Amino acid sequence: MSIITLTTDYGLKDHFVGALKGKLLSEFREATIIDISHNIDAFNVAEAAYIIGAAYNSFPKGTVHLIGVDIELNTENQHIAMQWNDQYFICADNGILSMLIQKIVPQKLVAINIHDRLPNDATDLDVFVKVACHLAKGGLLNVIGKEIKAIKEVTELQALVHDNQIKGNVIYIDYLGNVVTNIPKKLFLEIGKSRPYELKFKNQIIKTILPKYSDIGISSNYPLKDHEGQKLAIFNEAGFLEIAIFRSNPETVGSASSLLGLNYRDVVTIEFGS
Amino acid sequence: MSIITLTTDYGLKDHFVGALKGKLLSEFREATIIDISHNIDAFNVAEAAYIIGAAYNSFPKGTVHLIGVDIELNTENQHIAMQWNDQYFICADNGILSMLIQKIVPQKLVAINIHDRLPNDATDLDVFVKVACHLAKGGLLNVIGKEIKAIKEVTELQALVHDNQIKGNVIYIDYLGNVVTNIPKKLFLEIGKSRPYELKFKNQIIKTILPKYSDIGISSNYPLKDHEGQKLAIFNEAGFLEIAIFRSNPETVGSASSLLGLNYRDVVTIEFGS
Amino acid sequence: MSIITLTTDYGLKDHFVGALKGKLLSEFREATIIDISHNIDAFNVAEAAYIIGAAYNSFPKGTVHLIGVDIELNTENQHIAMQWNDQYFICADNGILSMLIQKIVPQKLVAINIHDRLPNDATDLDVFVKVACHLAKGGLLNVIGKEIKAIKEVTELQALVHDNQIKGNVIYIDYLGNVVTNIPKKLFLEIGKSRPYELKFKNQIIKTILPKYSDIGISSNYPLKDHEGQKLAIFNEAGFLEIAIFRSNPETVGSASSLLGLNYRDVVTIEFGS
Repeated sequence: MSIITLTTDYGLKDHFVGALKGKLLSEFREATIIDISHNIDAFNVAEAAYIIGAAYNSFPKGTVHLIGVDIELNTENQHIAMQWNDQYFICADNGILSMLIQKIVPQKLVAINIHDRLPNDATDLDVFVKVACHLAKGGLLNVIGKEIKAIKEVTELQALVHDNQIKGNVIYIDYLGNVVTNIPKKLFLEIGKSRPYELKFKNQIIKTILPKYSDIGISSNYPLKDHEGQKLAIFNEAGFLEIAIFRSNPETVGSASSLLGLNYRDVVTIEFGS
Repeated sequence: MSIITLTTDYGLKDHFVGALKGKLLSEFREATIIDISHNIDAFNVAEAAYIIGAAYNSFPKGTVHLIGVDIELNTENQHIAMQWNDQYFICADNGILSMLIQKIVPQKLVAINIHDRLPNDATDLDVFVKVACHLAKGGLLNVIGKEIKAIKEVTELQALVHDNQIKGNVIYIDYLGNVVTNIPKKLFLEIGKSRPYELKFKNQIIKTILPKYSDIGISSNYPLKDHEGQKLAIFNEAGFLEIAIFRSNPETVGSASSLLGLNYRDVVTIEFGS
Repeated sequence: MSIITLTTDYGLKDHFVGALKGKLLSEFREATIIDISHNIDAFNVAEAAYIIGAAYNSFPKGTVHLIGVDIELNTENQHIAMQWNDQYFICADNGILSMLIQKIVPQKLVAINIHDRLPNDATDLDVFVKVACHLAKGGLLNVIGKEIKAIKEVTELQALVHDNQIKGNVIYIDYLGNVVTNIPKKLFLEIGKSRPYELKFKNQIIKTILPKYSDIGISSNYPLKDHEGQKLAIFNEAGFLEIAIFRSNPETVGSASSLLGLNYRDVVTIEFGS
């Protein structure tokens, strides 16, 4: 019996998330349901892709990830299910899964085709509920969909390499106002080859990407407390370059987003020396 | 073993919801507890009634719904429990349940009378916990209460019919700023009898209530994306007339509430032609 | 099999809480995981101590409380685990647990020493996950740590007694804007010995601390509704003096914090007559 996770833009004020869980439990009473986030910015597929990408590999093999962002079935948006890295993902074909897998070929990919087997008044979410419970019970993808070869590609918001430079963008601003870019550690290591570098954004320069937050104090004689409010860069647990304020607090110290003026889609570059 | 759902105005910042779950699990270790919402506007019984009404029928028969809004026992506010549509509801008699059932007679209705069987320092919520666990384990209503015939009626915020007009009000503004009225689809069909109609509010007119959001593009040659930000009306999944902005996002496109100036209690009318 | 509770400053927007639950379930598939709060003010150890203190005793014996606030292991901050009042607490030694236990000797206290048994890329949170699952499965503290005698003391924000006065501070402002002080009911009874008293703050005086909120109407001929918006004081369920507005609602009536101008750390005194 697999876990079912939920990632949506439904928010927590309304009844939608509770009702979704009620439907899942009506279909599969023993389901273990875990919330990843219900605060995805409305219809923001890039944000959904980042969040599910950062969370999925903390779950056991076979976990079923239901992604409820921009799911309305229409001519531009079919329903798909995918097995990838031994986990399952249910989503509309709106770019979220292509941003997640980054050209790595999934183990299996199907277009969901059970719509006409459900009652007439079934909603798009009811389709996802049916598929999620089927997979969580150990059912096969073939039973609920028809194999397809390709998903919708989204090329925006990918970090680009020019000569000795990686040019990326802010793709996510977290709860504490830390700023996450689309520059993966892997790309940094490949292009950088241990050369010196400068991280540049908004007239600011950072010369060292730290292994972890508290290393900000490592070459200093002052206690960590004295470093509160200083800017720093790290590769975060999700594997992306993050620009942060040490012990950030949007309501007191301020945050990377507020103090450095970094917003969604802003440019961040890394320039390597020769 | 039944599911227990929670609908409260406790918010998620404080310890109250966690402590409530701890008490439920102390009483009934195997309970399945599902949050519907903890962000009901404080003491807002109309909002609580809308949310529980929109969520309850996604749950299996026998589910126990604990409603923690305005529950303090006092001379004006007794504790009640009700079986209705094969589900259980535990609430104070503050109008929430009468707004929910809309004059439909419940299967069973009791005034909870176990208060003197609990320890002296038991709180009102402890009473609800005890009753919820009793019912979730399959216990009978008679054991925890005395049958009563009537609950407190709340007549405000009901849609009214005058001649060829239905006059309703905004009763809920959802997470995305969509505006829900108290005009039920059932009433619209009864009064309208397939006649043409105009939906009016704040100097605005809508002439078609759509079957679903994306039908906004159905008679157009443009892709759905071009319809973002347009106003529309539908009957939502809860069965009430909703005025929405297509792909609403309060922080970018704007929302029905912000763009159309519709707020809690504002008037919305449907006028039928002859 | 024990319950695992979570108290963090991770917020609910990001993937962190979901990923934490994924890690717990990967380690211990049958875990019952309950959120206490993920909205602790960032790095605020006093707020974390208040929240866990207010919640823990609603849970059954043997419950494991994982506290994810300011947990980065460094020279100033070791990882500790404690058995106290028949429950388990996992935390960094940053003052949270000393504020919680208030000089009462714990049943057992260990410095966690399993760090070198985990993979190289294990995070601080991975250590807490491992310990939480070990304890929830019934494992012993000795297996994951080395007994220690003392934890970091935090003396700020303790109520003080001078002659016939208790001088306290605001330590928490709840979801509804009610203001919680660090003055325990126990101290009030000990020092007060049933003498008359005046509660003073910001040029305001309250002469009666009520047994419960709705007692505001007890010596009045008016319905409770007429008391909305009045200030009152009670000892709350967590055992601390709270200053509240009857039927507080920050968005309509206003709250104790907004109406009375009481903020975090502000002084509140109780003066006893002779």
